[in-house]
Amino acid sequence: MSMNSFGHLFRVTTWGESHGPALGATVDGCPPGITIDEAMIQQWLDKRKPGQNKFTTQRREPDQVKILSGVFEGQTTGTPVQLMIENTDQRSKDYGDIMDKFRPGHADITYWQKYGIRDYRGGGRSSARETASRVAAGGLAREAIRQIAPNVQITGYMTQIGPHKIDRGNFDWSQIEQNPFWTPDAQAAEDWANYLDVLRKSGNSVGAIVEVVARGVPAGIGAPVYAKLDTDLAAAMMSINAVKGVEIGEGMAAAELTGEANADEIFMGQNGPQYSSNHAGGILGGISTGQDIVVRFAVKPTSSILTTRKTITKSGEETEIITKGRHDPCVGIRAVPVGEAMMACVILDHLLLHRGQIGENRGRIG
Amino acid sequence: MSMNSFGHLFRVTTWGESHGPALGATVDGCPPGITIDEAMIQQWLDKRKPGQNKFTTQRREPDQVKILSGVFEGQTTGTPVQLMIENTDQRSKDYGDIMDKFRPGHADITYWQKYGIRDYRGGGRSSARETASRVAAGGLAREAIRQIAPNVQITGYMTQIGPHKIDRGNFDWSQIEQNPFWTPDAQAAEDWANYLDVLRKSGNSVGAIVEVVARGVPAGIGAPVYAKLDTDLAAAMMSINAVKGVEIGEGMAAAELTGEANADEIFMGQNGPQYSSNHAGGILGGISTGQDIVVRFAVKPTSSILTTRKTITKSGEETEIITKGRHDPCVGIRAVPVGEAMMACVILDHLLLHRGQIGENRGRIG
Amino acid sequence: MSMNSFGHLFRVTTWGESHGPALGATVDGCPPGITIDEAMIQQWLDKRKPGQNKFTTQRREPDQVKILSGVFEGQTTGTPVQLMIENTDQRSKDYGDIMDKFRPGHADITYWQKYGIRDYRGGGRSSARETASRVAAGGLAREAIRQIAPNVQITGYMTQIGPHKIDRGNFDWSQIEQNPFWTPDAQAAEDWANYLDVLRKSGNSVGAIVEVVARGVPAGIGAPVYAKLDTDLAAAMMSINAVKGVEIGEGMAAAELTGEANADEIFMGQNGPQYSSNHAGGILGGISTGQDIVVRFAVKPTSSILTTRKTITKSGEETEIITKGRHDPCVGIRAVPVGEAMMACVILDHLLLHRGQIGENRGRIG
Amino acid sequence: MSMNSFGHLFRVTTWGESHGPALGATVDGCPPGITIDEAMIQQWLDKRKPGQNKFTTQRREPDQVKILSGVFEGQTTGTPVQLMIENTDQRSKDYGDIMDKFRPGHADITYWQKYGIRDYRGGGRSSARETASRVAAGGLAREAIRQIAPNVQITGYMTQIGPHKIDRGNFDWSQIEQNPFWTPDAQAAEDWANYLDVLRKSGNSVGAIVEVVARGVPAGIGAPVYAKLDTDLAAAMMSINAVKGVEIGEGMAAAELTGEANADEIFMGQNGPQYSSNHAGGILGGISTGQDIVVRFAVKPTSSILTTRKTITKSGEETEIITKGRHDPCVGIRAVPVGEAMMACVILDHLLLHRGQIGENRGRIG
Repeated sequence: MSMNSFGHLFRVTTWGESHGPALGATVDGCPPGITIDEAMIQQWLDKRKPGQNKFTTQRREPDQVKILSGVFEGQTTGTPVQLMIENTDQRSKDYGDIMDKFRPGHADITYWQKYGIRDYRGGGRSSARETASRVAAGGLAREAIRQIAPNVQITGYMTQIGPHKIDRGNFDWSQIEQNPFWTPDAQAAEDWANYLDVLRKSGNSVGAIVEVVARGVPAGIGAPVYAKLDTDLAAAMMSINAVKGVEIGEGMAAAELTGEANADEIFMGQNGPQYSSNHAGGILGGISTGQDIVVRFAVKPTSSILTTRKTITKSGEETEIITKGRHDPCVGIRAVPVGEAMMACVILDHLLLHRGQIGENRGRIG
Repeated sequence: MSMNSFGHLFRVTTWGESHGPALGATVDGCPPGITIDEAMIQQWLDKRKPGQNKFTTQRREPDQVKILSGVFEGQTTGTPVQLMIENTDQRSKDYGDIMDKFRPGHADITYWQKYGIRDYRGGGRSSARETASRVAAGGLAREAIRQIAPNVQITGYMTQIGPHKIDRGNFDWSQIEQNPFWTPDAQAAEDWANYLDVLRKSGNSVGAIVEVVARGVPAGIGAPVYAKLDTDLAAAMMSINAVKGVEIGEGMAAAELTGEANADEIFMGQNGPQYSSNHAGGILGGISTGQDIVVRFAVKPTSSILTTRKTITKSGEETEIITKGRHDPCVGIRAVPVGEAMMACVILDHLLLHRGQIGENRGRIG
Repeated sequence: MSMNSFGHLFRVTTWGESHGPALGATVDGCPPGITIDEAMIQQWLDKRKPGQNKFTTQRREPDQVKILSGVFEGQTTGTPVQLMIENTDQRSKDYGDIMDKFRPGHADITYWQKYGIRDYRGGGRSSARETASRVAAGGLAREAIRQIAPNVQITGYMTQIGPHKIDRGNFDWSQIEQNPFWTPDAQAAEDWANYLDVLRKSGNSVGAIVEVVARGVPAGIGAPVYAKLDTDLAAAMMSINAVKGVEIGEGMAAAELTGEANADEIFMGQNGPQYSSNHAGGILGGISTGQDIVVRFAVKPTSSILTTRKTITKSGEETEIITKGRHDPCVGIRAVPVGEAMMACVILDHLLLHRGQIGENRGRIG
Repeated sequence: MSMNSFGHLFRVTTWGESHGPALGATVDGCPPGITIDEAMIQQWLDKRKPGQNKFTTQRREPDQVKILSGVFEGQTTGTPVQLMIENTDQRSKDYGDIMDKFRPGHADITYWQKYGIRDYRGGGRSSARETASRVAAGGLAREAIRQIAPNVQITGYMTQIGPHKIDRGNFDWSQIEQNPFWTPDAQAAEDWANYLDVLRKSGNSVGAIVEVVARGVPAGIGAPVYAKLDTDLAAAMMSINAVKGVEIGEGMAAAELTGEANADEIFMGQNGPQYSSNHAGGILGGISTGQDIVVRFAVKPTSSILTTRKTITKSGEETEIITKGRHDPCVGIRAVPVGEAMMACVILDHLLLHRGQIGENRGRIG
């Protein structure tokens, strides 16, 4: 048991703080013979990298990943893969004020209450920089999936910023890479840019909703009842910084459906069962149906804002705080590649887990 | 690693099928010296028991728990506690039709695709009867919590059935035990009874939302970054049958908040920090703040309904299905004690985990 | 993490005390589709059962196993298999004297010091009766192995009782089932019978060495560096009651060998590599070579003897103790089927683990 | 579950190959507030470091540890501690011959058969260099133990090289640091030096036995029945490269004892129970008695020797091999600090585990 690890067979342990020498991911259980190099992982880190546009933090980190172990002559060897990212832009003077004060809505106070010590520089371990390690591990997971289940495609995108939702009627997969919000609704991207610009200038921040879809996942992946695919996805997404809610398929809206409306009717297609709808989000009883796996999560607004908030000091005195420094007006944006990475890790893990328990002898229909 | 286990130090493994000889929970890691007997656990099982009113399945199971190990002279010994519930009312003829057909919205098809074999009687392992095991384990967890952190109170209640939400203005803790829905809004209880009666007679079902609150949890419980308190709670709730969404504090609505609105301001109270609000749901950075821990989850409608739905057979032929038998028009009702049980197990587990890593030397404020 | 569980994918959790209502094993992760019934497991329990001859305890327990879950129509379903053995012969008056006194060489005192409470009836959880649960789980593991790797044969036997070792020159596999000691040396069996008879009548006990061999295990099973096949076997055997030493291949005698003598030279056979010798015990770098896997463990003498020994009471007063009751003069005898069961569980677990990480694409030679 | 991790709450994951850029240990679950710096860890690495005398490999690695995370202002923060050691002396041309040939007695062939790929440079992941990571983690464990259980002292030493055992009558703790073999018998140290010198010059190698003792461990540490203290110690020691046997207390010799001889009689001392002897090696029922915890393990001779041995190539052709390069004539010597490190990690882990489940309310005697 490790509190900084996730996954059953493809097991990722992340380590490192925002302003220490480095951070990274120790990845154990990766299948051998996967073709991988640093560039293949770097592409995903670049997607998450800060400072790419005015809607993300202006901290400039190259976030260059190094493979320290587990890869030989361009292939994984089956032994642990160490992925390290050195910290380079550590303007720690920005954080002087939070040495003694707790930022409302931030983990400052709970780390202190738990450990009695805390690395206050940039949030230390509670910083969203930790998610770079996840993205690196996810890059490796994607390549392993490509070999084991080549039809799987994992795509994340934003569906809401603040009160502004996308119009599902405008959904266009090809738009996702075309705007800084990774949203499939081109019109929403324009509207959001204006909205967020005003917000950013006022020193405020806002929440968002991210949806991640895995297409082409074979039926039968997942394991009841406490390693369900949806259980593991819920844990994976909820573990991301600032996430406050996770939904599978209909999600919270399932409460409003009747049994008649909710039941995805089943038909027989050329290559197996097909469904009239996907309220289930591709998962029944914790096991994949072969439909799209649909996960959605809400990211709360950054707590580091330029508005004065009331708080207390470590010695218990009441005071006020403004968080200067370089922050994201909407951390939800950079959560998109993080959500994709977590999806990739969970899917790969369950592909291996299924193969371990059951091999290739799955139940056939028809 | 066990796919049917949850928890780190207080570790629960459930086993058993709906229509086998018995089901139960193997509970490892319980602290020794906890006063416990079967009646103390039975009270929680009785709360979940079917057939108590017309809104839950008419299957009549006494759900009588037996303690087979780990308790000596009325106290836990620190060794595994085996909690067994024998199945008695197994009218399996009701399930004949689903031997060969898959119920839409049910795990029938995915179990078949995964394992190539499935106990079709009453859903087998995928039946909600499995949750009786959780409630039994939760009963033990509550008694252990009482000894370790006596101020903790765990209470679940319904906040929504179908489209009908409670009015938070009517919230009254004392009402929760007064109606068959465990809802704190007496007016809602009346309205829901009428609504559900119509639905039940039509052979349909509907979803619901359950909220579980843990009051009195000390600050500092939880462990970043993959054993976060909210991560473990999300996994625990999502693992419950039919759950499709989990929220902490503001949940999905956090997406709509600005950073200014979301930040729970901090003041200094007599006994430590106090907050102006609880958008965070009592958890920051995965660690408890000392405020109420608030979790909410959506339960989808039962898939076993009296309406004809299109489906296929095991051999791939298209057909139709009506699920006769005795089912819940709203499984969300009986999910209330299950959600409470999962909350109890997670809280206890993290109390032990914290004590293991850190002992009593927590950080103090003021 | 569960302290009463072992195995990675094939995960066994045992529960129960010597004189409680029942004990058993919760087995998670078993492959589906394994043909199994109670009789197939019972045969192994019968081998371990007490009271079969004068060299084992005269306690008479039928040790009848019941399958409570995870099996449907004669096949495993892939969900947890609960194997329960009810306790029937609980002559607890025999144990009255040890309520307050600690038996030297027994876990009485440490359980008390750890938990502050202990089930003193028959040793409670520390009783060797717990090994019945292992044997039941091992019976299931054997059937699963039969399907996945049908050439594997697992056989245990005694090689030493007290100072009396077998003569390896007399080794005859067919003798193992022919004597109460499961020893391959017919002459040793005769000598030991006389030796043990004298010892038994004097109320004394003695230690033994058991060897367990797995033949036909494919090369490539095991996983460096902390889930090595030898690591897991060492843990599995050391976890058996009264075991004080574990050896792989040459074992402790490896200390006396030179590198030249120790290196098993490699040749090319019809079906892959062959070796000039097997000092390694079939494991190199934690991974199987395809040779016989050879594990040996020493069992200390029963601490429950009829000789007066000095001890203290729970309140710290010095006193003496004689342990009456029905005990084994050499617990090593009944440890043979237990060692076989642990070997079966470990081998199956690693077959699944290998398949999970690597599938069928192993390295080929030649 | 991670195959490269060990420990329950104090959890160590090692990574890295002999000739990659670096290797290290990711340590999760360390208590916060432990004073630590690189020098405090370096002292133990220096003890294990090669090239210190003519009896260990002449490879010259500074083995300089860097702390990359989890420590702030000289104290652990409770988050993962990353300990990295960069590889500097990578004379990989020495290993050219083993690209295609398998060294008898080495993991070359099994890694190939398992993974179908292997980093042949210096043995890759199977190299004893991996043990540097363990020693680093052990250094941290020692400091944490110092805070939690300050009386604990952990000391390893050699008791046998080849056929030459120490004379227990000469045992002198103060001698251990005075000779290159870390042996408490000064006479043996002299004899061994001559013996090993001859062996080394002939290009041969030899096995050894190492004993590790933990003094001052409080009674009550350990957890039946599969996380027993002796189980975890057996696994920890057996996981060390080249170890073939593990003993607790009497070890394999327990087979020769009668129950009367084996029972350590109990008396009442000033500070709790005392024992007439320690056949048990300080552990009963998997739980510490408060006596010295005594573990012994056998290390086989290095398989890399200058004698010609028969082997095969990757393509299955029979051939011969001589392993040139820089190797240890007796790897057992450098296994001493490794064994100490594993003991430290296991003891700390169980101190935390005990505190987690039970807190401070242990059973008292008298």
